[in-house]
Amino acid sequence: MKDKSFLMIPGPTPVPESVLLTMAKHPIGHRSSEFSKILESVYSDLKYVFQTKNDVIVYTASGTGAMDAALSNLINPGDKVLSLVIGNFSQRLAKISTALGADVEIIEVEPSQAINPMVLKERLDKDINKEIKLVTLIQNETSTGVTNDVKTLVSIIKEHGALSVVDGVTSIGAIDCKMDEWGIDVLISGSQKGFMVPPGLSFLAASEKAWEVHKDCKRPDFYFNWDTNRKSVLANSTAFTPAVNLIAGLKTGLEMIKEEGLENVIARHTKLSKGLRTALKALNLKLFVDDDKIASTTITAVLPPEGISVPDIRKILKNDYDIEVANGQNALKDKIFRIGTLGFVSERDVIMVVGALEATLYKLGYKFELGSGVAALIKYLNNN
Amino acid sequence: MKDKSFLMIPGPTPVPESVLLTMAKHPIGHRSSEFSKILESVYSDLKYVFQTKNDVIVYTASGTGAMDAALSNLINPGDKVLSLVIGNFSQRLAKISTALGADVEIIEVEPSQAINPMVLKERLDKDINKEIKLVTLIQNETSTGVTNDVKTLVSIIKEHGALSVVDGVTSIGAIDCKMDEWGIDVLISGSQKGFMVPPGLSFLAASEKAWEVHKDCKRPDFYFNWDTNRKSVLANSTAFTPAVNLIAGLKTGLEMIKEEGLENVIARHTKLSKGLRTALKALNLKLFVDDDKIASTTITAVLPPEGISVPDIRKILKNDYDIEVANGQNALKDKIFRIGTLGFVSERDVIMVVGALEATLYKLGYKFELGSGVAALIKYLNNN
Repeated sequence: MKDKSFLMIPGPTPVPESVLLTMAKHPIGHRSSEFSKILESVYSDLKYVFQTKNDVIVYTASGTGAMDAALSNLINPGDKVLSLVIGNFSQRLAKISTALGADVEIIEVEPSQAINPMVLKERLDKDINKEIKLVTLIQNETSTGVTNDVKTLVSIIKEHGALSVVDGVTSIGAIDCKMDEWGIDVLISGSQKGFMVPPGLSFLAASEKAWEVHKDCKRPDFYFNWDTNRKSVLANSTAFTPAVNLIAGLKTGLEMIKEEGLENVIARHTKLSKGLRTALKALNLKLFVDDDKIASTTITAVLPPEGISVPDIRKILKNDYDIEVANGQNALKDKIFRIGTLGFVSERDVIMVVGALEATLYKLGYKFELGSGVAALIKYLNNN
Repeated sequence: MKDKSFLMIPGPTPVPESVLLTMAKHPIGHRSSEFSKILESVYSDLKYVFQTKNDVIVYTASGTGAMDAALSNLINPGDKVLSLVIGNFSQRLAKISTALGADVEIIEVEPSQAINPMVLKERLDKDINKEIKLVTLIQNETSTGVTNDVKTLVSIIKEHGALSVVDGVTSIGAIDCKMDEWGIDVLISGSQKGFMVPPGLSFLAASEKAWEVHKDCKRPDFYFNWDTNRKSVLANSTAFTPAVNLIAGLKTGLEMIKEEGLENVIARHTKLSKGLRTALKALNLKLFVDDDKIASTTITAVLPPEGISVPDIRKILKNDYDIEVANGQNALKDKIFRIGTLGFVSERDVIMVVGALEATLYKLGYKFELGSGVAALIKYLNNN
């Protein structure tokens, strides 16, 4: 049905009407005092969501832009980088590091697995000469629906002395991430996920230690340069003409997070995803990530029942029920489908997607007790 | 008055309601077939506005991002770059080149002046060993309101053999710029100017010759990398999650340009700016750019009458008449004010700003024949 499409993909995610309407206003001058006030509010609220006292830079760029900005402001050719890879997006941090001329070593696990902190500790313990300059990792890997234990991993990195560069693109504002308390050195995120804003903005915060290391970075960066960008943050401004309308929308999104309370936002994501997992299990569907402890609370990967294809499920969900879920990526294409519960998502939405998935599987001839998924979900939501 | 503000600054520029409403729709998935169709239309229409057969890359970034992308994909440290500087924005191209390690030589003229083609020719003629690898220049310098004769300058650069990198951020879609016919090697622009869209997107097209030179560029670039980004253009996709809503708005903006016809759009800018200059002269105001031939048709810089300050003029225009005009930049701050006639601007808007400026000057005690500016403007518009 026209205009009815509802996104349950890892991103972009659904955007509240109030954000959309803020964005639909005529742009204002980016050097005006009105816009400076908007930025002041945005910069302050970003610190709240990042759980940090560090300044948060706002780039007009995709999340990948912030990944690039994080690494290109730290890495010199030849630097030793350890990349913890659990899927496509954590792989990207390794690719960027390699492009920058770093000597990249990868610890990789099977998709559906998280990094085992003991494996990291063992590797870093061996690095007695402290050759490893930085470790890249992801909090939430949307290609598989796995969440790393960033708190423990970062504490191990901290003990070694390397910098930690954490991709929080699909986690910040949805999954707990205490930048300062856990001692994360560089943390990035993007507008189109937990922040409930369309894509186009990305965020970066760096610790004092990262700023120190940055001083020795020889690579010239203009657009993504940390120094010029932070200087503008401190002046409630931006270094270059920003995406004015998206930033106005971001202000509204951040205010909604503050109003709900970050802890409550995080708890909501946990509850909805656990409810979804409960419902999928009740439908006898196999979850790609077995272990509840590492299962993402923002994206859930599901295997299709035997004899039913992922494209068929996605097609019916989209054509008949106006719901978009994601396919698997690369080697996982057509092997899994992924349901997002990220950002502006409520109990109603999860009830809807479970019901629509039941209807879809019913049409495709899957044998199961109709209504059992929704029933299990409702029970879960009421008891938690 | 709340919500009444009208922008007549060099950018962001006014945005049509249809673009704003397109942008206010829920974002769609950036890997969906619907979005691919939007991109197909956008990529095709961008070629029309750029007057080129080259692929046009769309970056989610400010115009400065595209400047960075242009130079960082061509320059190796030590390369000799000649930068033609006529104001702040053309200066930025020199700064980025310097940051990239180029050996930058600058030809600079007084603000209010354009580059004299003969001076460029003389310099390039001296470069008998063809050491100069590329020449950076701007078509329309908004800090002063001067337009370079890009056609002639590029023909001289072409004759020498160097690459031409042209900043068309505030000219493309407003001032004639025939990329292919004139032989421009790299041309960039941004969404928030002639394209009638809010800021957040920038565009880059490169000639075959520029692509050849790019092959020898040793600098690794991930986010702005030409190759990965062009590969996605050819697949009607984007390399990374783009600003989906802005691109939807861009489609609408481009369709409006096509419907009006690029030639008519360019003629409208010429007519409105010449009308504005006529009106300002009738008010006995001094124009910063004397020479009609190099005066920008998108931004007009004006000196305040003696005894009246730029801040007072801007304040009254804004507070009493809800019109924002720009101050001068850097050394020109408070020396000039700048009136934009860029993008979604009609005769009505120019009549409005001239009338409001008369009202402002009247309040500030300037002695002139009230109504004479509007009268001169109306006559001009009717006779041209």
